[in-house]
Amino acid sequence: MDEAVPPRSRKPAAPPAAPPAESAEAEASQTEALNERAVRLAQYYRGKIETVPKVPVRSLKDFSLWYTPGIAAVSREIEKDPSRSLDLTGRWNTIAILTDGSRVLGLGNIGPQAALPVMEGKALLFKYLGGVDAVALPVDVATPEALIDTALRIAPAFGGINLEDIASPKCFQVLEELQRRLPIPVWHDDQLGTAAATLAGLINALALTGRTISSTRTVLLGAGAANLVTVRLLIRMGHDPHSITVVDSRGILHAERADIDEMQLHNRWKYRVALETDGGGRRGTVADAMAGADVVLAASTPQPGTIRPEWVQSMAPRPIVFALANPLPEIWPADAHAAGAAIVATGRSDFPNQVNNSLIFPCVFRGVLDARARSIPDEVVIAAAQELAAVTDRISPDHLLPTMDEREVFPHVAAAVAQAAVKLGIARVKASRDEFYARARDLMARPAALAQALEASHLVAPMPDEPVPSRKSR
Amino acid sequence: MDEAVPPRSRKPAAPPAAPPAESAEAEASQTEALNERAVRLAQYYRGKIETVPKVPVRSLKDFSLWYTPGIAAVSREIEKDPSRSLDLTGRWNTIAILTDGSRVLGLGNIGPQAALPVMEGKALLFKYLGGVDAVALPVDVATPEALIDTALRIAPAFGGINLEDIASPKCFQVLEELQRRLPIPVWHDDQLGTAAATLAGLINALALTGRTISSTRTVLLGAGAANLVTVRLLIRMGHDPHSITVVDSRGILHAERADIDEMQLHNRWKYRVALETDGGGRRGTVADAMAGADVVLAASTPQPGTIRPEWVQSMAPRPIVFALANPLPEIWPADAHAAGAAIVATGRSDFPNQVNNSLIFPCVFRGVLDARARSIPDEVVIAAAQELAAVTDRISPDHLLPTMDEREVFPHVAAAVAQAAVKLGIARVKASRDEFYARARDLMARPAALAQALEASHLVAPMPDEPVPSRKSR
Repeated sequence: MDEAVPPRSRKPAAPPAAPPAESAEAEASQTEALNERAVRLAQYYRGKIETVPKVPVRSLKDFSLWYTPGIAAVSREIEKDPSRSLDLTGRWNTIAILTDGSRVLGLGNIGPQAALPVMEGKALLFKYLGGVDAVALPVDVATPEALIDTALRIAPAFGGINLEDIASPKCFQVLEELQRRLPIPVWHDDQLGTAAATLAGLINALALTGRTISSTRTVLLGAGAANLVTVRLLIRMGHDPHSITVVDSRGILHAERADIDEMQLHNRWKYRVALETDGGGRRGTVADAMAGADVVLAASTPQPGTIRPEWVQSMAPRPIVFALANPLPEIWPADAHAAGAAIVATGRSDFPNQVNNSLIFPCVFRGVLDARARSIPDEVVIAAAQELAAVTDRISPDHLLPTMDEREVFPHVAAAVAQAAVKLGIARVKASRDEFYARARDLMARPAALAQALEASHLVAPMPDEPVPSRKSR
Repeated sequence: MDEAVPPRSRKPAAPPAAPPAESAEAEASQTEALNERAVRLAQYYRGKIETVPKVPVRSLKDFSLWYTPGIAAVSREIEKDPSRSLDLTGRWNTIAILTDGSRVLGLGNIGPQAALPVMEGKALLFKYLGGVDAVALPVDVATPEALIDTALRIAPAFGGINLEDIASPKCFQVLEELQRRLPIPVWHDDQLGTAAATLAGLINALALTGRTISSTRTVLLGAGAANLVTVRLLIRMGHDPHSITVVDSRGILHAERADIDEMQLHNRWKYRVALETDGGGRRGTVADAMAGADVVLAASTPQPGTIRPEWVQSMAPRPIVFALANPLPEIWPADAHAAGAAIVATGRSDFPNQVNNSLIFPCVFRGVLDARARSIPDEVVIAAAQELAAVTDRISPDHLLPTMDEREVFPHVAAAVAQAAVKLGIARVKASRDEFYARARDLMARPAALAQALEASHLVAPMPDEPVPSRKSR
């Protein structure tokens, strides 16, 4: 890590040069090659993470400490005071990645087995980026109640629960119920992680284009897990609800829509947003929503063409386009720029401005685990987004947020989260921001050291389809 | 590992020298010191295992393969054929250690939080000895049905399930139901692991004292999880049911006991054993059962004095005493030897002849995972016990079974298990015994290499309360 980081500049950069020529065909072919390689490498490595000892094991004798008979004394300590399980086991740093596989990436309801590789990748991210030990736990359940029940049952093994890839609106019910009933942090990454990363990117995009949140007109395309939460957090941060227009597959969401009663019955979260924003004073289609808008935040159909270039052309000058669907954005960045977008963000790692939950969840969990927070209220989510925006180095229209290679900023975000938990009175551990920062920095640095030790010992095989790097380059 | 292992001798050794002088007081003080140290070290290391990457991560770009967008292609492959999750994820080598905390070691129903350190220690053993990635999963459930249900729900994430520390008789119901309903191996270590290790030790103890299983009179003290299964396996291996006497807290178990109807209602597993053995032709107390018996297998109250020296004195000449309760044996080995026992085994690692599930479960899981067995029938359990007995090097009254430092025998046991699965037609992978052996040997050798790499890089801290070893001695 380079200690001599240049001073941060928050001055808006010049508008970006025209993006390199791209075509939908070239993109598709590149995607195909990536997919094929991902499957080939999955077969080669057969899993993304494994377990290793955290304690020395020299001989048979050591097991009398790590297991029977000595371990019984540890159990008795916890029996006397169950909260001691956070001191005497790995629970303090271990979370479950829990899903019912009902909405996996852009693939829909593919079930728990097919969800497993995604949860494994997420577990790798949790460790690599956050220093958090995570267990991939796709489960076979038919109802939200069964999912809630399962989470309540497994909670004693974990310091926190990360919900993942659960269909909307049941994800709202599951998260609310678990946040209410469990004394450990519960997070749904597709709601909170995506919303927080979106907000962080938006904060910097607004700054770069000379806007303030209170004077911005924003369109949210899609009324799923992330966008409904983004609306809630935007309003909490000072956005005028009546300048927010949410659009779903039936058009602009407003208080008088024909399906409003059905909504009240089946999706009270969407219903609330319909009443609160009332279409931002508008009625009609996406085109009606986007005309003159400053910002569009799309988290809808993973298909280029979902946002049409002419709609971007109809927006206010120097508009902001976040096309966040995975694996394919609602509009290719090149097309959005060609239609006049000043700033384009996507959910993908292979374009600039990836709005990526991975910038948020490792920091949030590092922070709440280090503070032993009892929960993750919206104040903590907003604190994470604000800090992530603030610590982004040298922001520009092509660099709204840090990339995952710039993760020296992560411990700052973790510390902001921990400190927010302390301020809210939900932390079991009290420490200063500097102490939280130092702790997060050390725990977040460890996984790279672990990986390096294993690669140096040839215990992690190099990529089978790439030339082996020379010793010098390692 | 020493390649030049001396040839194995199966000749009975001379009777053991008198054991070193021991006193209950010295034992208790030693136990106290061990317990205190176990708690201190649990606080120091805060967990026994952690997760590390199995794949290279060099930069941001690699996550497009390990996570989104590339991972979606892996999920689609599994969606088409869910069994591919065993090829394309770590599921092939990952198991859950599932408990309701209802009977943890000798501590009783201490609940899931207090069970966690034990499950963590077990997960360490699973990796260290078997090369298996295990997830410690104590769960908060009130009924056997809820435990069964939880196991069914989490199964998509795992290649097998190890049940642990569940009270009897519900453990029988849970295991039977899960074995019937899940297409992956399910094992209850306190039933099958303990029974198999006991059988392996017994096979060698009988050989050392010139006995055969068909002419042996055996007393089982305790009618819990392990002993009821041991009876079933003994009979399957040729033991005459009418030479088996099972004793519980109410005395000898037989077909005409006053509580037989209650037993039929509440514990049909015990009821079946009562009918089948009918007290081995005896009625009365432990003393009545043990008089003239060749073998006593005790898995009952963890308290020295549960077996009285005079009862050992009343047994047949050169009797065999297995006092397997944890953490305290039913009779101290010194007292059993003083009363005439030719061979004494316990469940503890700090005496000779530890009858230890750890000799069995890593091998059984290595074998069934490598063969991708659909289940673990009794034939497989017996194959594991017989192979473990057969590969024990230079057996003697003080060395019935390998210690955990002699684990070069483990891949042989794993291969025997895999081969038994193939023979029974329950294996999804067909390979020769040599191939299974080589695979098991490599996978079982990996954890030591992992541990060594981490210790060498100072990523596993040395024991804080021991002098640091010199470089040379490492």
